[in-house]
Amino acid sequence: MIITLAREFGSGGRELGKRLSDELNIPYYDKEIISSIADNCKLDARYVEHFLEEGKGTNFFFTFGHSFGLGSTVNNDLLRTIMQEQCSVMKKIAEKDCIIVGRCADVLLKELNPFRIFVFGDLDKKIERCHRREPEMSEKEIEKFLKRIDKDRAKLYSMYSDIPWGDKRGYDLLINTSGKDLKMLAKVTADYIRGVFGK
Amino acid sequence: MIITLAREFGSGGRELGKRLSDELNIPYYDKEIISSIADNCKLDARYVEHFLEEGKGTNFFFTFGHSFGLGSTVNNDLLRTIMQEQCSVMKKIAEKDCIIVGRCADVLLKELNPFRIFVFGDLDKKIERCHRREPEMSEKEIEKFLKRIDKDRAKLYSMYSDIPWGDKRGYDLLINTSGKDLKMLAKVTADYIRGVFGK
Repeated sequence: MIITLAREFGSGGRELGKRLSDELNIPYYDKEIISSIADNCKLDARYVEHFLEEGKGTNFFFTFGHSFGLGSTVNNDLLRTIMQEQCSVMKKIAEKDCIIVGRCADVLLKELNPFRIFVFGDLDKKIERCHRREPEMSEKEIEKFLKRIDKDRAKLYSMYSDIPWGDKRGYDLLINTSGKDLKMLAKVTADYIRGVFGK
Repeated sequence: MIITLAREFGSGGRELGKRLSDELNIPYYDKEIISSIADNCKLDARYVEHFLEEGKGTNFFFTFGHSFGLGSTVNNDLLRTIMQEQCSVMKKIAEKDCIIVGRCADVLLKELNPFRIFVFGDLDKKIERCHRREPEMSEKEIEKFLKRIDKDRAKLYSMYSDIPWGDKRGYDLLINTSGKDLKMLAKVTADYIRGVFGK
Protein backbone atom coordinates (compact mmCIF):
# COMPACT_ATOMS: atom_id res chain seq x y z
CA MET A 1 0.00 0.00 0.00
CA ILE A 2 2.11 2.84 -1.38
CA ILE A 3 0.23 6.15 -1.43
CA THR A 4 1.50 9.39 -2.89
CA LEU A 5 -0.23 12.67 -2.16
CA ALA A 6 0.44 15.89 -4.05
CA ARG A 7 -1.39 19.02 -2.99
CA GLU A 8 -2.04 22.63 -3.79
CA PHE A 9 -0.72 25.01 -1.17
CA GLY A 10 -3.50 25.92 1.27
CA SER A 11 -5.74 23.01 0.31
CA GLY A 12 -5.17 21.15 3.58
CA GLY A 13 -3.45 18.34 1.71
CA ARG A 14 -0.66 17.93 4.24
CA GLU A 15 -3.16 17.64 7.12
CA LEU A 16 -5.20 15.18 5.06
CA GLY A 17 -2.03 13.15 4.47
CA LYS A 18 -1.25 13.02 8.19
CA ARG A 19 -4.79 12.02 9.04
CA LEU A 20 -4.73 9.33 6.32
CA SER A 21 -1.55 7.98 7.86
CA ASP A 22 -3.39 7.66 11.21
CA GLU A 23 -6.50 6.15 9.65
CA LEU A 24 -4.53 3.57 7.66
CA ASN A 25 -1.92 3.09 10.36
CA ILE A 26 0.99 3.48 7.94
CA PRO A 27 3.92 5.93 8.25
CA TYR A 28 3.84 9.38 6.71
CA TYR A 29 6.86 10.95 5.01
CA ASP A 30 7.48 14.51 4.01
CA LYS A 31 10.34 16.48 5.57
CA GLU A 32 12.03 13.24 6.69
CA ILE A 33 13.05 12.66 3.09
CA ILE A 34 14.84 16.01 2.99
CA SER A 35 16.92 15.18 6.10
CA SER A 36 17.91 11.80 4.71
CA ILE A 37 19.04 13.32 1.40
CA ALA A 38 20.95 16.06 3.22
CA ASP A 39 22.67 13.50 5.46
CA ASN A 40 23.55 11.16 2.62
CA CYS A 41 24.83 13.94 0.34
CA LYS A 42 26.50 15.87 3.17
CA LEU A 43 24.58 19.02 2.28
CA ASP A 44 22.72 21.61 4.30
CA ALA A 45 19.11 20.45 4.71
CA ARG A 46 17.94 24.01 3.98
CA TYR A 47 19.59 23.89 0.57
CA VAL A 48 18.14 20.49 -0.25
CA GLU A 49 14.69 21.63 0.89
CA HIS A 50 14.80 24.85 -1.05
CA PHE A 51 15.92 23.09 -4.19
CA LEU A 52 13.47 20.23 -3.96
CA GLU A 53 10.49 22.24 -2.79
CA GLU A 54 10.77 25.14 -5.12
CA GLY A 55 12.83 23.93 -8.02
CA LYS A 56 15.21 26.81 -7.53
CA GLY A 57 18.38 24.87 -6.92
CA THR A 58 20.63 26.91 -9.12
CA ASN A 59 19.99 30.40 -7.79
CA PHE A 60 19.96 29.25 -4.21
CA PHE A 61 23.19 27.41 -4.65
CA PHE A 62 25.02 30.51 -5.76
CA THR A 63 23.45 32.63 -3.04
CA PHE A 64 24.03 30.27 -0.14
CA GLY A 65 27.22 28.63 -1.27
CA HIS A 66 29.09 31.90 -1.81
CA SER A 67 30.75 30.03 -4.64
CA PHE A 68 30.45 32.13 -7.72
CA GLY A 69 33.47 30.33 -9.11
CA LEU A 70 31.61 27.02 -9.44
CA GLY A 71 30.82 26.34 -13.06
CA SER A 72 27.49 25.05 -14.29
CA THR A 73 28.91 21.54 -14.76
CA VAL A 74 29.61 21.13 -11.06
CA ASN A 75 26.22 22.61 -10.28
CA ASN A 76 24.44 20.28 -12.68
CA ASP A 77 26.27 17.34 -11.17
CA LEU A 78 25.05 18.35 -7.74
CA LEU A 79 21.48 18.72 -8.94
CA ARG A 80 21.68 15.27 -10.46
CA THR A 81 23.12 13.82 -7.26
CA ILE A 82 20.34 15.29 -5.13
CA MET A 83 17.65 14.08 -7.50
CA GLN A 84 19.15 10.57 -7.63
CA GLU A 85 19.46 10.52 -3.86
CA GLN A 86 15.83 11.59 -3.50
CA CYS A 87 14.89 8.70 -5.71
CA SER A 88 16.84 6.10 -3.75
CA VAL A 89 15.70 7.43 -0.34
CA MET A 90 12.12 7.22 -1.57
CA LYS A 91 12.51 3.69 -2.93
CA LYS A 92 13.94 2.57 0.39
CA ILE A 93 10.91 4.05 2.18
CA ALA A 94 8.52 2.45 -0.29
CA GLU A 95 9.74 -1.04 0.60
CA LYS A 96 6.98 -0.91 3.23
CA ASP A 97 3.44 0.52 3.21
CA CYS A 98 3.64 4.31 3.44
CA ILE A 99 2.19 7.63 2.45
CA ILE A 100 4.52 10.18 0.88
CA VAL A 101 3.45 13.81 0.61
CA GLY A 102 4.91 15.86 -2.23
CA ARG A 103 8.39 15.11 -3.60
CA CYS A 104 7.07 14.09 -7.05
CA ALA A 105 6.73 10.67 -5.45
CA ASP A 106 3.97 9.63 -7.86
CA VAL A 107 6.43 9.84 -10.76
CA LEU A 108 9.56 8.67 -8.95
CA LEU A 109 7.80 5.56 -7.63
CA LYS A 110 5.79 4.92 -10.78
CA GLU A 111 7.08 1.37 -11.26
CA LEU A 112 5.68 0.43 -7.83
CA ASN A 113 2.21 1.43 -9.03
CA PRO A 114 1.36 3.72 -6.11
CA PHE A 115 -2.14 5.07 -5.45
CA ARG A 116 -1.75 8.67 -6.54
CA ILE A 117 -3.84 11.35 -4.83
CA PHE A 118 -4.01 15.04 -5.72
CA VAL A 119 -5.59 17.40 -3.19
CA PHE A 120 -6.86 20.79 -4.31
CA GLY A 121 -9.27 23.53 -3.33
CA ASP A 122 -11.14 26.59 -4.51
CA LEU A 123 -8.90 29.65 -4.48
CA ASP A 124 -11.06 31.59 -1.99
CA LYS A 125 -11.17 28.65 0.41
CA LYS A 126 -7.39 28.19 0.21
CA ILE A 127 -6.86 31.88 0.94
CA GLU A 128 -9.29 31.65 3.91
CA ARG A 129 -7.40 28.67 5.35
CA CYS A 130 -4.02 30.41 5.05
CA HIS A 131 -5.45 33.64 6.45
CA ARG A 132 -6.53 31.83 9.62
CA ARG A 133 -2.91 30.70 10.11
CA GLU A 134 -1.24 33.93 9.02
CA PRO A 135 -3.69 36.67 10.01
CA GLU A 136 -1.08 39.42 9.58
CA MET A 137 -0.80 38.73 5.84
CA SER A 138 -3.36 40.39 3.57
CA GLU A 139 -5.51 38.24 1.31
CA LYS A 140 -3.78 39.70 -1.72
CA GLU A 141 -0.36 38.75 -0.30
CA ILE A 142 -1.56 35.23 0.49
CA GLU A 143 -2.98 34.78 -2.99
CA LYS A 144 0.32 35.85 -4.54
CA PHE A 145 2.28 33.61 -2.17
CA LEU A 146 0.25 30.47 -2.73
CA LYS A 147 0.23 30.92 -6.49
CA ARG A 148 4.01 31.24 -6.43
CA ILE A 149 4.47 28.08 -4.35
CA ASP A 150 2.23 26.06 -6.66
CA LYS A 151 4.00 27.47 -9.69
CA ASP A 152 7.33 26.34 -8.24
CA ARG A 153 5.91 22.89 -7.50
CA ALA A 154 4.62 22.63 -11.05
CA LYS A 155 7.97 23.70 -12.43
CA LEU A 156 9.86 21.11 -10.41
CA TYR A 157 7.36 18.42 -11.36
CA SER A 158 7.84 19.21 -15.04
CA MET A 159 11.47 18.06 -14.70
CA TYR A 160 10.18 14.54 -14.00
CA SER A 161 6.94 14.22 -15.94
CA ASP A 162 5.37 15.03 -19.31
CA ILE A 163 1.96 15.36 -17.65
CA PRO A 164 1.63 18.75 -15.95
CA TRP A 165 1.46 18.84 -12.14
CA GLY A 166 -2.17 18.67 -11.01
CA ASP A 167 -3.42 17.43 -14.41
CA LYS A 168 -5.97 14.73 -13.63
CA ARG A 169 -4.40 12.28 -16.06
CA GLY A 170 -1.49 11.82 -13.64
CA TYR A 171 -3.56 10.71 -10.65
CA ASP A 172 -5.97 8.04 -9.42
CA LEU A 173 -8.09 10.31 -7.25
CA LEU A 174 -8.40 14.10 -7.08
CA ILE A 175 -10.02 15.50 -3.96
CA ASN A 176 -11.50 18.99 -3.63
CA THR A 177 -11.34 19.92 0.07
CA SER A 178 -13.39 23.13 -0.27
CA GLY A 179 -16.15 23.35 2.32
CA LYS A 180 -15.41 19.88 3.64
CA ASP A 181 -14.16 18.66 7.00
CA LEU A 182 -10.67 17.17 6.69
CA LYS A 183 -11.28 14.63 9.45
CA MET A 184 -14.31 13.29 7.57
CA LEU A 185 -12.43 13.38 4.25
CA ALA A 186 -9.56 11.37 5.78
CA LYS A 187 -11.99 8.68 6.92
CA VAL A 188 -13.76 8.30 3.59
CA THR A 189 -10.53 8.52 1.58
CA ALA A 190 -8.99 5.83 3.79
CA ASP A 191 -12.00 3.61 3.04
CA TYR A 192 -11.57 4.32 -0.66
CA ILE A 193 -7.88 3.36 -0.53
CA ARG A 194 -8.60 0.18 1.42
CA GLY A 195 -11.13 -0.77 -1.26
CA VAL A 196 -8.64 -0.16 -4.07
CA PHE A 197 -5.97 -2.27 -2.36
CA GLY A 198 -8.56 -4.90 -1.42
CA LYS A 199 -7.80 -4.56 2.31
CA MET B 1 -28.19 14.10 -1.67
CA ILE B 2 -27.89 15.46 -5.20
CA ILE B 3 -25.04 13.87 -7.14
CA THR B 4 -23.92 14.85 -10.60
CA LEU B 5 -21.57 12.66 -12.60
CA ALA B 6 -19.78 13.76 -15.74
CA ARG B 7 -17.59 11.26 -17.55
CA GLU B 8 -15.18 10.77 -20.38
CA PHE B 9 -16.47 8.43 -23.06
CA GLY B 10 -15.19 4.90 -22.44
CA SER B 11 -14.22 5.54 -18.82
CA GLY B 12 -17.05 3.42 -17.43
CA GLY B 13 -18.65 6.50 -15.87
CA ARG B 14 -22.17 5.57 -16.86
CA GLU B 15 -21.82 2.09 -15.33
CA LEU B 16 -20.30 3.64 -12.21
CA GLY B 17 -23.27 6.00 -12.02
CA LYS B 18 -25.77 3.13 -12.26
CA ARG B 19 -23.90 1.16 -9.61
CA LEU B 20 -23.76 4.22 -7.35
CA SER B 21 -27.51 4.58 -7.72
CA ASP B 22 -27.90 0.97 -6.49
CA GLU B 23 -25.40 1.40 -3.66
CA LEU B 24 -27.01 4.61 -2.42
CA ASN B 25 -30.54 3.51 -3.24
CA ILE B 26 -31.38 6.72 -5.08
CA PRO B 27 -32.71 7.09 -8.63
CA TYR B 28 -30.44 7.52 -11.63
CA TYR B 29 -31.23 9.87 -14.51
CA ASP B 30 -29.71 10.08 -17.94
CA LYS B 31 -31.80 9.44 -21.05
CA GLU B 32 -35.00 10.01 -19.04
CA ILE B 33 -34.25 13.72 -19.10
CA ILE B 34 -34.16 13.72 -22.90
CA SER B 35 -37.60 12.08 -23.14
CA SER B 36 -39.10 14.58 -20.71
CA ILE B 37 -37.73 17.54 -22.63
CA ALA B 38 -38.93 16.08 -25.93
CA ASP B 39 -42.40 15.49 -24.50
CA ASN B 40 -42.66 18.93 -22.93
CA CYS B 41 -41.36 20.75 -26.03
CA LYS B 42 -43.22 18.51 -28.45
CA LEU B 43 -40.01 17.67 -30.29
CA ASP B 44 -38.48 14.50 -31.62
CA ALA B 45 -36.40 12.91 -28.83
CA ARG B 46 -33.64 12.18 -31.39
CA TYR B 47 -33.32 15.86 -32.14
CA VAL B 48 -33.20 16.81 -28.47
CA GLU B 49 -30.64 14.10 -27.77
CA HIS B 50 -28.43 15.04 -30.67
CA PHE B 51 -28.52 18.69 -29.74
CA LEU B 52 -27.94 18.18 -26.03
CA GLU B 53 -25.36 15.43 -26.31
CA GLU B 54 -23.23 16.88 -29.00
CA GLY B 55 -23.90 20.59 -28.98
CA LYS B 56 -24.77 20.44 -32.66
CA GLY B 57 -28.32 21.70 -32.48
CA THR B 58 -28.22 24.10 -35.36
CA ASN B 59 -26.92 21.83 -38.14
CA PHE B 60 -29.06 18.94 -37.08
CA PHE B 61 -32.14 21.10 -37.04
CA PHE B 62 -31.67 22.09 -40.62
CA THR B 63 -30.84 18.55 -41.71
CA PHE B 64 -33.68 16.78 -39.96
CA GLY B 65 -36.29 19.47 -40.08
CA HIS B 66 -36.11 19.92 -43.84
CA SER B 67 -36.91 23.53 -43.10
CA PHE B 68 -34.34 25.67 -44.78
CA GLY B 69 -36.77 28.56 -44.72
CA LEU B 70 -36.54 28.88 -40.91
CA GLY B 71 -34.50 31.91 -39.97
CA SER B 72 -31.80 31.87 -37.29
CA THR B 73 -34.08 33.73 -34.87
CA VAL B 74 -36.56 30.90 -34.77
CA ASN B 75 -33.72 28.44 -34.44
CA ASN B 76 -32.12 30.33 -31.58
CA ASP B 77 -35.47 30.54 -29.85
CA LEU B 78 -35.80 26.79 -30.09
CA LEU B 79 -32.31 26.23 -28.72
CA ARG B 80 -33.13 28.51 -25.82
CA THR B 81 -36.41 26.69 -25.18
CA ILE B 82 -34.70 23.31 -25.08
CA MET B 83 -32.00 24.54 -22.75
CA GLN B 84 -34.53 26.15 -20.42
CA GLU B 85 -36.64 23.00 -20.48
CA GLN B 86 -33.59 20.91 -19.63
CA CYS B 87 -32.98 23.16 -16.67
CA SER B 88 -36.53 22.93 -15.34
CA VAL B 89 -36.79 19.15 -15.87
CA MET B 90 -33.57 18.76 -13.94
CA LYS B 91 -34.67 21.00 -11.08
CA LYS B 92 -37.87 19.00 -10.76
CA ILE B 93 -35.83 15.79 -10.55
CA ALA B 94 -33.47 17.33 -8.00
CA GLU B 95 -36.31 17.95 -5.56
CA LYS B 96 -35.47 14.48 -4.27
CA ASP B 97 -32.16 12.62 -3.78
CA CYS B 98 -30.81 11.56 -7.15
CA ILE B 99 -27.81 10.94 -9.35
CA ILE B 100 -27.73 12.66 -12.73
CA VAL B 101 -25.24 11.52 -15.36
CA GLY B 102 -24.09 14.08 -17.90
CA ARG B 103 -26.39 16.92 -19.01
CA CYS B 104 -24.10 19.63 -17.53
CA ALA B 105 -26.09 18.96 -14.35
CA ASP B 106 -23.23 20.15 -12.12
CA VAL B 107 -23.59 23.66 -13.55
CA LEU B 108 -27.35 23.72 -14.06
CA LEU B 109 -27.99 22.63 -10.47
CA LYS B 110 -25.16 24.68 -8.96
CA GLU B 111 -27.42 26.54 -6.53
CA LEU B 112 -28.44 23.20 -4.96
CA ASN B 113 -24.79 22.52 -4.13
CA PRO B 114 -24.62 19.03 -5.66
CA PHE B 115 -21.72 16.65 -5.08
CA ARG B 116 -19.94 16.84 -8.43
CA ILE B 117 -18.06 13.78 -9.70
CA PHE B 118 -15.94 13.53 -12.83
CA VAL B 119 -14.99 10.07 -14.06
CA PHE B 120 -12.03 9.65 -16.40
CA GLY B 121 -9.53 7.07 -17.56
CA ASP B 122 -6.22 6.54 -19.33
CA LEU B 123 -6.66 6.66 -23.10
CA ASP B 124 -5.41 3.09 -23.68
CA LYS B 125 -7.77 1.72 -21.04
CA LYS B 126 -10.73 3.59 -22.51
CA ILE B 127 -9.93 2.24 -25.97
CA GLU B 128 -9.65 -1.28 -24.52
CA ARG B 129 -13.05 -0.98 -22.84
CA CYS B 130 -14.74 0.26 -26.05
CA HIS B 131 -12.98 -2.38 -28.13
CA ARG B 132 -14.50 -5.15 -25.97
CA ARG B 133 -17.96 -3.74 -26.77
CA GLU B 134 -17.34 -2.91 -30.41
CA PRO B 135 -14.80 -5.51 -31.58
CA GLU B 136 -15.41 -4.73 -35.26
CA MET B 137 -14.06 -1.18 -34.85
CA SER B 138 -10.29 -0.71 -35.05
CA GLU B 139 -8.45 0.88 -32.14
CA LYS B 140 -7.66 3.90 -34.31
CA GLU B 141 -11.35 4.35 -35.15
CA ILE B 142 -12.32 4.03 -31.50
CA GLU B 143 -9.72 6.58 -30.45
CA LYS B 144 -11.00 9.03 -33.04
CA PHE B 145 -14.60 8.38 -32.02
CA LEU B 146 -14.12 8.82 -28.30
CA LYS B 147 -12.07 11.96 -28.74
CA ARG B 148 -14.83 13.43 -30.89
CA ILE B 149 -17.55 12.62 -28.35
CA ASP B 150 -15.56 14.19 -25.52
CA LYS B 151 -14.81 17.22 -27.67
CA ASP B 152 -18.53 17.66 -28.30
CA ARG B 153 -19.28 17.30 -24.59
CA ALA B 154 -16.65 19.89 -23.78
CA LYS B 155 -18.07 22.25 -26.39
CA LEU B 156 -21.59 21.95 -25.04
CA TYR B 157 -20.36 22.41 -21.46
CA SER B 158 -18.58 25.62 -22.45
CA MET B 159 -21.99 27.13 -23.24
CA TYR B 160 -22.84 26.88 -19.54
CA SER B 161 -19.57 27.28 -17.68
CA ASP B 162 -16.37 29.33 -17.65
CA ILE B 163 -14.46 26.36 -16.23
CA PRO B 164 -13.61 23.87 -19.00
CA TRP B 165 -15.33 20.48 -18.94
CA GLY B 166 -13.19 18.01 -16.97
CA ASP B 167 -11.09 20.74 -15.33
CA LYS B 168 -10.68 19.65 -11.71
CA ARG B 169 -11.73 23.06 -10.38
CA GLY B 170 -15.33 22.31 -11.38
CA TYR B 171 -15.69 19.11 -9.36
CA ASP B 172 -15.60 17.70 -5.83
CA LEU B 173 -14.09 14.35 -6.72
CA LEU B 174 -12.33 13.10 -9.85
CA ILE B 175 -12.05 9.35 -10.24
CA ASN B 176 -9.62 7.54 -12.52
CA THR B 177 -11.16 4.17 -13.35
CA SER B 178 -8.09 2.76 -15.14
CA GLY B 179 -7.17 -0.70 -13.93
CA LYS B 180 -9.86 -0.65 -11.26
CA ASP B 181 -12.96 -2.73 -10.77
CA LEU B 182 -16.11 -0.61 -11.20
CA LYS B 183 -18.08 -2.61 -8.65
CA MET B 184 -15.43 -1.92 -6.03
CA LEU B 185 -15.18 1.74 -7.08
CA ALA B 186 -18.96 2.13 -6.73
CA LYS B 187 -18.82 0.78 -3.18
CA VAL B 188 -15.99 3.04 -2.00
CA THR B 189 -17.36 6.09 -3.83
CA ALA B 190 -20.76 5.52 -2.22
CA ASP B 191 -19.04 5.47 1.20
CA TYR B 192 -17.24 8.67 0.30
CA ILE B 193 -20.51 10.36 -0.69
CA ARG B 194 -22.28 9.19 2.46
CA GLY B 195 -19.44 10.69 4.50
CA VAL B 196 -19.68 14.02 2.69
CA PHE B 197 -23.45 14.20 3.23
CA GLY B 198 -23.08 12.98 6.84
CA LYS B 199 -25.32 9.97 6.22
